[in-house]
Amino acid sequence: MSKKFGIDVGGTSVKIGYFEGDILISKFTVQTSKQNNGADIIKDVAEAIITFASENNIDLDNIDGYGFGVPGPIVDNIVSFCPNIGWVEYDVKKEFNKYITSNNVLLANDADVAAAGEFWALKDENYRNLVFYTFGTGVGGGIIIDKKLIQGAHGGAGELGHMPVKFENAAECGCGSKGCLETVASATGIVNEAKTMLKESNTDSELREKENFTAKDVFDAAKVGDEIATNVVEQMCKYVAIASANVAATVDPDVFILGGGVAAAGDILIDTVKKYYTQYVMKQFKETPFKLAKLGNDAGIYGAAYLITK
Amino acid sequence: MSKKFGIDVGGTSVKIGYFEGDILISKFTVQTSKQNNGADIIKDVAEAIITFASENNIDLDNIDGYGFGVPGPIVDNIVSFCPNIGWVEYDVKKEFNKYITSNNVLLANDADVAAAGEFWALKDENYRNLVFYTFGTGVGGGIIIDKKLIQGAHGGAGELGHMPVKFENAAECGCGSKGCLETVASATGIVNEAKTMLKESNTDSELREKENFTAKDVFDAAKVGDEIATNVVEQMCKYVAIASANVAATVDPDVFILGGGVAAAGDILIDTVKKYYTQYVMKQFKETPFKLAKLGNDAGIYGAAYLITK
Repeated sequence: MSKKFGIDVGGTSVKIGYFEGDILISKFTVQTSKQNNGADIIKDVAEAIITFASENNIDLDNIDGYGFGVPGPIVDNIVSFCPNIGWVEYDVKKEFNKYITSNNVLLANDADVAAAGEFWALKDENYRNLVFYTFGTGVGGGIIIDKKLIQGAHGGAGELGHMPVKFENAAECGCGSKGCLETVASATGIVNEAKTMLKESNTDSELREKENFTAKDVFDAAKVGDEIATNVVEQMCKYVAIASANVAATVDPDVFILGGGVAAAGDILIDTVKKYYTQYVMKQFKETPFKLAKLGNDAGIYGAAYLITK
Repeated sequence: MSKKFGIDVGGTSVKIGYFEGDILISKFTVQTSKQNNGADIIKDVAEAIITFASENNIDLDNIDGYGFGVPGPIVDNIVSFCPNIGWVEYDVKKEFNKYITSNNVLLANDADVAAAGEFWALKDENYRNLVFYTFGTGVGGGIIIDKKLIQGAHGGAGELGHMPVKFENAAECGCGSKGCLETVASATGIVNEAKTMLKESNTDSELREKENFTAKDVFDAAKVGDEIATNVVEQMCKYVAIASANVAATVDPDVFILGGGVAAAGDILIDTVKKYYTQYVMKQFKETPFKLAKLGNDAGIYGAAYLITK
């Protein structure tokens, strides 16, 4: 049975999972040290793994590999840049091998490994092609084609938050463009769009009573029929649907998975996206299902470990 | 050296190429027999190959395989449907093997094999990921990821003509949806959009002098500054650019290739698409090049043969 570690490097903490076969045996966390442009992060991870292994009688010589998810684009197994952490053209494998010897150290973007994790979680479905969205502070994504995560020419495959979808009154996006999916479908975008709609109308809304409301508040208000909140949710879902119709015409997946904090809204999100999707998509793709992500915060460690499976 | 046939099945004729290694040695054509829902097409193709082989002292026992491009979606090497020809759930390999024995009979959609052909033509560039558009009567496409043609869950990967891009005054599309790229960027779409713009304005245009003008006439008029024609071309290119920004955020290709009859317009098409593309796309993808297709009508036989290479 293959033994591997899945390591999900985040801006605040690094989650580490130890797997035997498909089974997550144990997980632990180290803090992300941002000093010196993240120079200590990999050392900290390696030391935590060495400690864990010695405490659990695991022989690191028998480990098949180490998969890493990192918050930035990867080209040829090198991190191009990680603004949150400070890495630029950073060779994680080389650094890791200073502490733990392994030829099999593989990297992918964090949203990509989350996609791989969700794909793994659906292994009984016999899907080959999956599109994963993560709706959080931003909107990310990952794409599995023929059971393999794709990375693209510049490590940018699955940057689904930066599909241009809104052309009238389009908001500026962090990426430098305008009207990207992220501006209407991220937690931040949902709150911003709600604030704009509140400002532009006099319609009653329970959102007016809160000084600082969240994307969750917007969904909760929509669930009880608040008109402004409903409009924000409908708009978000319409643009997710248009983006998905574009994605379907490009890669024709077996399934769309919606993940990230915003996806905790649940059925209202799936049902509303699906309603618009069938309006915009070609007949051939109308039945492609939308499902909620299953693994939550563990998707990254599962997916990072999955990199080693293939 | 590998020996193979690339076979491009069209609605009017079937083009057949005989290849040794990467070299097209010979090509010939048979008419497409549409009687009996296309029941004779594969027999006609096989007989033409047998005749060609016997005339050229080629031993069919030494052929590595036969690649077919067909005008319809393929799932698991079976043609789902070909409206132009009459095939439904049609097993080309089984039919072909009645006349010529080969285990290596592989199928792909016609736009997909054209994409594979153009990828082959660019082999010196060391690209791994390519997106191909064909702008003809309709708009088709094909996508190469990590040097492999992708087909998708329903054989629909690369159906780029059916990305929803136009939401105001959107025209009906043949696919049953509205505002698809095909409605503004196919030869038919370009003519329709020009007619609509002519009807809705009094602006002088040389297009008014022609009873039936073509997409080529629209491009030719735009090249000499005709205002209506320029607007039509700008609109087409803007939507191709938006579609391409969506595709870039999905699969992040090394290159976009523009092919099909409309692409004969040349630099005006590339330059205008590129102008809008840089406006709509994320920074990371701005430098992705757009190039004109190289192989013209031979793309299909090259790409069909390429199916056998891999």
